[in-house]
Amino acid sequence: MFLGYEMEPKELQAAVDEANQKALGILLASQPVWTDVRQAIEVLPGMTKSTILHAGPPIAWDRMCEAQRNGVINGILYERLADARDEAIRMVEEDKVILAPCHDYGTVGGMAGITTASMPLVQVRNERTGNDGYSQLFQGPDVQAWRSEDYSSAAVKQWCYLEQVLGPALQGAIRLRGGLDVKSLLAKALQMGDECHNRNVAGSALLMREMTPYLLRAGIGRQMLHDSIDYLARAEQFCLTLGMAAAKATVEPAKGIPYCTIVTTMARNGTDFGIKISALGEAWFTASANPVQGLYFSSEWGPQDAALDMGDSAIMETVGLGGMVQASAPALQQFVGGSFRRALELTREMRGISVGTNRDYQLPNLDFEGAPIGIDARRVVESGITPILDTAIAHKAGGVIGAGQARAPLACFERAMEAFSQGPAGATGSRKATPA
Amino acid sequence: MFLGYEMEPKELQAAVDEANQKALGILLASQPVWTDVRQAIEVLPGMTKSTILHAGPPIAWDRMCEAQRNGVINGILYERLADARDEAIRMVEEDKVILAPCHDYGTVGGMAGITTASMPLVQVRNERTGNDGYSQLFQGPDVQAWRSEDYSSAAVKQWCYLEQVLGPALQGAIRLRGGLDVKSLLAKALQMGDECHNRNVAGSALLMREMTPYLLRAGIGRQMLHDSIDYLARAEQFCLTLGMAAAKATVEPAKGIPYCTIVTTMARNGTDFGIKISALGEAWFTASANPVQGLYFSSEWGPQDAALDMGDSAIMETVGLGGMVQASAPALQQFVGGSFRRALELTREMRGISVGTNRDYQLPNLDFEGAPIGIDARRVVESGITPILDTAIAHKAGGVIGAGQARAPLACFERAMEAFSQGPAGATGSRKATPA
Repeated sequence: MFLGYEMEPKELQAAVDEANQKALGILLASQPVWTDVRQAIEVLPGMTKSTILHAGPPIAWDRMCEAQRNGVINGILYERLADARDEAIRMVEEDKVILAPCHDYGTVGGMAGITTASMPLVQVRNERTGNDGYSQLFQGPDVQAWRSEDYSSAAVKQWCYLEQVLGPALQGAIRLRGGLDVKSLLAKALQMGDECHNRNVAGSALLMREMTPYLLRAGIGRQMLHDSIDYLARAEQFCLTLGMAAAKATVEPAKGIPYCTIVTTMARNGTDFGIKISALGEAWFTASANPVQGLYFSSEWGPQDAALDMGDSAIMETVGLGGMVQASAPALQQFVGGSFRRALELTREMRGISVGTNRDYQLPNLDFEGAPIGIDARRVVESGITPILDTAIAHKAGGVIGAGQARAPLACFERAMEAFSQGPAGATGSRKATPA
Repeated sequence: MFLGYEMEPKELQAAVDEANQKALGILLASQPVWTDVRQAIEVLPGMTKSTILHAGPPIAWDRMCEAQRNGVINGILYERLADARDEAIRMVEEDKVILAPCHDYGTVGGMAGITTASMPLVQVRNERTGNDGYSQLFQGPDVQAWRSEDYSSAAVKQWCYLEQVLGPALQGAIRLRGGLDVKSLLAKALQMGDECHNRNVAGSALLMREMTPYLLRAGIGRQMLHDSIDYLARAEQFCLTLGMAAAKATVEPAKGIPYCTIVTTMARNGTDFGIKISALGEAWFTASANPVQGLYFSSEWGPQDAALDMGDSAIMETVGLGGMVQASAPALQQFVGGSFRRALELTREMRGISVGTNRDYQLPNLDFEGAPIGIDARRVVESGITPILDTAIAHKAGGVIGAGQARAPLACFERAMEAFSQGPAGATGSRKATPA
C-alpha cells in the first residue's frame, strides 16, 4: 500500500504512530480562549470585499447545491456587491466574486457557511500555540422558522443584526472580560448533556451566564443591550460558534506533520464531503456527501426537502466532540430513534478509529472516561468504520429544518490514504480539490 | 399489624393501594408556577414578628444542634428583636420568640432553614390545586466560603442583601414575566445532568437565561440590576429554592387522604429526621438524623466538623427528585466515590419503594424512563430500603462545607406505620413531635 516511501512497511507504521502521537499531543495541549469579535475583512488573510467563503471543500458554482448557492447570492446582496439576485448570479458566473472554502481562510461556518467581508467573527486564540481560529456568529434562534420563500431577505436581515448589534455588543463584553476559556466551558457542557455539536443548550446557557455581567458593563446602549440579551436567551445553539472557532484553532497546529495520518479537517458543502490529513497539509480529499438521517422540526418537511450533509461544523467531531461523544448527550437519540445503549456503543466505536483520549473532556455516563480524540484515517480505512457526525438538516433552498446524524463517506478517507501511500512528497499538499 | 381498622388485612391493603393511587395522581398532576416573591410576614399563616422558623421537625431549644441554634440567634439579630447574641439566647430561653418548623407554616428552608418575618420568599403556585408553596431564597454563591467565626455577621449581611436587593429585583422581574413554569424548568434540568437537589447548575443557568430579559426591563436601578445579575451568575444552586417551593406546593394537596401511606414530608433539623405520611395529616414521626457521607470543599474540614443531616431540602426526594434520580446526575457520584452504575442502581432501588413513575420528569440515561415518585412508607418498612437523599454538609457551627448523600433512618417510617396501624383515628393528625 505505501509504495512511495523508502522504508519497510513496519518502519513506516512506526513513523506514522510516532507522528500521530505528536499530533495528538498538539490537539490535547490546545488552550482555546475566546478573545475578540472581529470583522472578517480585518482578520482573515487573503479576504477581500468580493470574496464569498462557504462551508466544505472547494466547489465550482455549477456543482454547488441550491442552499449554498442561495447563501452565496445572499452574501453578495448583503455586501451590496449587487442589488438583485439576477445580477448576483451573473457576477458569480463572470468570476467577479471569489468563491472559496472558509477552512482555507482560517475560519469555519455552520451549514452553508457563508462568510463575507463585513461579517463579525468570533476569534478564539489557541494560547498554547498562538494561532487564532474564527467562526461566523451562529445565525440565531429563528433560523429554524425560516421558510424557503423568505430565506433570502431573512438571511440578509439577520446578518445585518449580527453586524450591527450582536457583534459589537459581544465585542465590547468579551474585551471587557479579557477572554473566556472555551475548553473549560465545553468541559462543563459535556457534563450537562451537551455533545457540543447538535446539542448546545447547556453551553449556551453557561455562556450567557458568563457574559451577561460584562454585557451590562460594556457601555453599550440600552436597546442594543436588550436585543443582545434577548437573542442569547433564545439561541440554544449559540455556543457552537465558539466551539467551532476553538476547534479550528485547535487543529491548525496539528497540520503538516510528516507521516501523520490524523484527520485535521472534515467539512461538507452539501455536494461533497472533504477531509484533510495532517501529513498532506492543505490538500482536500473528497467524496459525495451523504444524506442526514434524523427528525424534521415540522411535519411539512421530509427527506425530499433536505439538502445533503452540509457545513463546517464537522470540525467538532474532528476534535473529538459531537458524534464522537454521543454518550454524553443521550437526549439526541430522540432525533434518530436511538437509545442510551446506542449512544454508548457509538462512542465506543469511535474510540476504535481514534488515536487518543482527551482527559479534559470527561464523560460522566462512561464513569468520566475521556472523549476519544484524533481520528486516524488509516484506522478508518482499515476498519471501514467512518466517523459519525451529529448535524442539523438544511432545507434544499436554505434554512434549518431538522437534526440528526450522518456518516462520513469512506471514499474520501481511502483517497487520502491512497495519496499518502504515494510517498512523503504528498506532504507538500495542494489546495485543489480532488474530484468526487 | 393493622389492628385499628375494622376490615380484613387484604381489604385494608386494597384501600391503601387505592388511596396511594389517588395521592399519586395529585402529585403527578401538580402544575407548579413561580408567581411572586413575598415577605414571610405577608403570606405565611400564623407568622409573627417574633417567630423564627427552622428546618426539619419540631425541636426544643435544648436539643437543637449548634448550627441551627446559631441560625436562630442570627435570625433574632437580623429582625432586630435583640442587639446581641446573649440577649437573643435569653429571649429564646424565656419563650419570647416562637420556634417552629418551616414546614408547619407552609414554607421550606435549606440547611438550618432559618426563616423570619422580613425575609423574601419565592411563591410557587400549584395551578392545578390553587395552593402556594414558599421557600427562603437560597443563601447564595458565597455560603460555602463562610467560616464559623464569621458565620453570624455574614449570615445577617446576606439576609439584608436578599431582603433589600435580590428579593425586590426578582419580584419585579417575575411579576413582569407573569410567572415561570417550574415543572418545565426542572424537566429540562434533568436532561442536563441535574438531579435538582445537590446539582442545580443547569437549572440555575436556565433560570438566569429566562429571567435576565425581565430583570433588564423591570425598572430596577442600575446598581441593583448589576448586583442581582452578578449574584445569579455565580449562584449555581439558586434553582433549588424554586424547586423546593414547587415541591412544597406539590405535596400539600396530597396530605390527609385516609388510608394513604405516601410520604408527604421528609425534613431534618440536624438532630432529628422527621416525616409525615398522608393519612396521618400533619403529625410528625421522627428518628435520629444520620451523618452525611460525602466530600468536603476544603481539606481543612472533615467528618468531625460536620453537623448531622439537616434541612428541608429533602422535600425534593419527597417529590421524586434528588437522590431518587441519581441516574440523571452521574457527576454527583464524584462526591461519594461512586460510579455511573451505582447511580443507575440507586434509581432502580428507589423505584422499589415508590408508587409511581413521573413521565413529566424523564431520565435520558434510562432511555427516558420517568422518575420514581411517591415514596410508600409501607414499602419502606417492608423492604427495609430507605430513601437516599442528596444533600449538602453543614458545618457544626453553620455554613456549607461539603456535599454528599445520607439515608433516611428507617425508625421514623416504622413509627409512622405503627401509628397508622392504630386505625383511621390517626388521620386526624397531631402537630406535636413524637420523641426520637
